[in-house]
Parts: sequence; structure tokens; C-alpha cells
Amino acid sequence: MTAPLPDIVLIGAGNVGFHLGKRLAARGMKPVQVFSRSEEPARRLGEALDTPFTNDIEAIRPEANLYILAVRDDAIGNVAARLAPLLSGRPLIVHTSGATPSSVLAGYTSHYGVFYPLQTFSREREVDFDTVPFCIDAAREADARMLEQVAQRISTRVYRIDDRQRAILHVAAVFVNNFTNHLLGIGQDILDREGLPFDLLRPLILETARKVQDHPPAAMQTGPAVRGDQATIERHLDYLDKFPAYRELYRLLTVNIQRNTKAN
Amino acid sequence: MTAPLPDIVLIGAGNVGFHLGKRLAARGMKPVQVFSRSEEPARRLGEALDTPFTNDIEAIRPEANLYILAVRDDAIGNVAARLAPLLSGRPLIVHTSGATPSSVLAGYTSHYGVFYPLQTFSREREVDFDTVPFCIDAAREADARMLEQVAQRISTRVYRIDDRQRAILHVAAVFVNNFTNHLLGIGQDILDREGLPFDLLRPLILETARKVQDHPPAAMQTGPAVRGDQATIERHLDYLDKFPAYRELYRLLTVNIQRNTKAN
Repeated sequence: MTAPLPDIVLIGAGNVGFHLGKRLAARGMKPVQVFSRSEEPARRLGEALDTPFTNDIEAIRPEANLYILAVRDDAIGNVAARLAPLLSGRPLIVHTSGATPSSVLAGYTSHYGVFYPLQTFSREREVDFDTVPFCIDAAREADARMLEQVAQRISTRVYRIDDRQRAILHVAAVFVNNFTNHLLGIGQDILDREGLPFDLLRPLILETARKVQDHPPAAMQTGPAVRGDQATIERHLDYLDKFPAYRELYRLLTVNIQRNTKAN
Repeated sequence: MTAPLPDIVLIGAGNVGFHLGKRLAARGMKPVQVFSRSEEPARRLGEALDTPFTNDIEAIRPEANLYILAVRDDAIGNVAARLAPLLSGRPLIVHTSGATPSSVLAGYTSHYGVFYPLQTFSREREVDFDTVPFCIDAAREADARMLEQVAQRISTRVYRIDDRQRAILHVAAVFVNNFTNHLLGIGQDILDREGLPFDLLRPLILETARKVQDHPPAAMQTGPAVRGDQATIERHLDYLDKFPAYRELYRLLTVNIQRNTKAN
């Protein structure tokens, strides 16, 4: 027996709100209203979805079943504080953040949860939602089941992840996304300064990510550090004398790879 | 006016030799012979290409035009030393390494060069050769033109890259491939120890690499470090108390991202 699909109000029209709104609409769950505190993003998303929009929080429809807060981490508490008193019934309020515990919502309602798509979103890039892991959680089991139902309509990968697990996931995501991207930027910076095109490295970057889609990264480790090629490491460190910050990172990452290698 | 395609002997049947041999054959340049110092790899590649193979260096055919040494960095000099005296005429001898200067071949012939595919190869994964950047170089211009001709038949991306540039590329490749892969391994290790599936991070890893295919990484930087979210950073460092090596990396990478952000 399947519950009827919830009426959803989408709060926030940034990258997550924009893509999530479009996906919900494409899967038969068009938000009944979208809100952004700025008029233009509210209008843009409302028009894209062909659904009512507002930038006046007082004008948010009070009778929906699910309010999805796709807003910045530091705005979640404030938005919830202003929103909750306006609502009728006992709707579920969730946020979409990996970094914020669900408990920031607990002061405003007993029906709270998290609806966290573990992916990086850019305005101009289409998202392959089928493969986006949705990490859902709710204070009440019936609410968690509703979120599961919604998530399963827009993705094939739905996980129950509690606050503690999500905090750990977020740390790991910083390593594999933020820090990795920084290393890619170092690669580009070195090439830029030497007048070499970054396009030389782009296929390698893509293949590095593809390889770990069906293998554990540790089994894919190559390079001078893992094979103990001290001569190459010394040459690289000499070259990096002109980039002291990169040199320090090179040294520390090499030490860590070699420590891991010994441990295995 | 195009010169006739060279007769190629392929030395080495590891990951690079295996894939390169198959690609050469597929593009009308089947090696006239393949060599590996071990019998089984020599046989496997010879049979895959339907071409003669040997594991006896004295049996290498002496009259080819191009000898491609797809062997380990530390074996290039030794193989060249044994090979060169066996050859007739003045064939071109190249290696396929990003880490080794072409000059290691200079003691054995004046016709030497480099034929370096800038990609990571695994036995079991098909390679999209069309997009593999080939970095070629030779001591003599006529030899460089021959390498260019060969490379252009197997890839759309052919670059003239000298020893100095290739050494720099190799440092940058260590950052974007080896070090990045290590960070992906840290992500998996953290999740493993917490009983969370690494599949949660795989789509994010792929998207991180895809984004920089048409954007500069620095413009794609997100996360607590770049947005100066000290509260999240402190929470992450607290969590990482139980992984001291990862904690030190987290701290240094965060400092570097923030230093870059200020500089821009």
C-alpha cells in the first residue's frame, strides 16, 4: 500500500533547489510552490517549473505536507524559525544539507528530517539523478517512510543515514570532492605557470575517477610514492622549491601514501 | 607527402605495451614483433595481436624502423643498452615514460625520442585512445615528424613536449592522479571503518572529475575551507582526532585552499 504523494513546498532556489525542483516536477511531484528570499531566483525557478513562486515568507502556503529547505547551512535554523509558526497541521520539514544535523530543526517541530542528495550541483550542468545517493532521515518513522517514497521516485539509490553517519560522510566528501578539486587546481596552476595547456591532464583526471567506480582506490594507487621511487620524489621536490606550499603538500601526501603502503 | 608507416617493434607487454600494441594494430600499424622479458606476457600480447613474439632479446628483429620501449622506468637504460648493438641501420628508439628524460637513450643512439601517452592504463579497462594526449619528442626533427605521424593515427591529441616540460607535466600528474587517488582512498577508509558503503561517494567523485573537463578547478572549489566555515572545519578536525594522519592532511589542505582563496 502506497501513501499518496505529498504536496511539496520547495524553499530555496540555489543550485540544489533548482535541480531538485526540476527533478521532482519531472517525476510527478511538482512542488505546489517555490520560495526564495530573492525575487529573481524565485521567479526563475517558478517559471521553469510552471508553478507558483514567492519571495515573501509570509505568503508560503501553510497546508502542504512536506517543506524542503534547500538553503545555505547557516540559514536553515532561521528559515525554520520563521516558517514553522506559519504552517497548519503537522507537516514534515526537512533540509538538504550534509553538514548540518537534523536537530537544528527540532526546536520548531517534532516532524523534522533530512533529505540530502550526496552530489555537487552546478547551475549549468545537468545532474544524473538516477545515480545520486539520497541520504534520508526523520525523527519519526512514518516521516522517514514518506521521504523514502519521494526519494525512490527520483533516484535508484536511497539510504537511511542518521546525523552521526551523515557528519562522517561529510568529512569523507570533503576529502574526495573539495580536497581533490584543490589538487586538480594545483595541477592546473603548475601547468599555467609553465605555459602548458591543462587539457593535457583532463583525460587523466577523468580516468582516475572512472577507475574507482568499480575498484577500491587503494588498489589503484600508482606513482613514485607507492613504488618507493625516491629518485623521482627527490626530483619532484627539487622542482617544487619554487612552489613552497605545493612542496609541503607533496611531501605530506607522499609520506602518507608510503605509510599506508607499509601498513598493507 | 606522407612518409610510409614505420615497421614497429614493441618492447614490453605491461599495461602500456598491451594497450598501445592493440591500438597500433587497430590503426594499421601492427607491430612486426613484440618482446617481453617474460614468456607469458610476450605470448599473450603476441597472440592478441596475431604477431610474432619473443622473450629473447637476441631474437629481436634488427631491421625495423621504430623500437618502442614500453618498460619500467628503471629498465629503460638497460634495455636500450642491450638492444642498440643488435640493430641494423639507424632506427628510432623511443620510450613511453613521463618520468624519464629522453637523454637516458642518448648514449646508445643518436636517433632517440619519447612517445608518452599521458594516461593511466589498467589491464582490464579499455582505453579511449582518441582523447589520450600523446607527448612526443625526438632528438632529430625527422624522427619527431615520424612519431607525430604515428601518434596522429592513434589519437586526436598530439603535443610536442620536451624533457623539461614532460618533467613538469609528470609532477602535475602526480598531484591530479596519484595524490587525488590517495584522497579517494582516505574517503573509502573513513567510510569502511564506520560501516558506510563507499558507493555513497562514487557519483560525487565522478562528477568532481567531470566538472573540470570544461571548467578550471579553482572556479569549481566548494566546501567549508573556501567559504571560510570555521565551525564546520573545527567539527571535522574534532572527528579526525582518531585519524591523526588524515587530520594533518585535512589541516594542511584547508590552509592551502584558504591561502589560495585570499590570493585570488
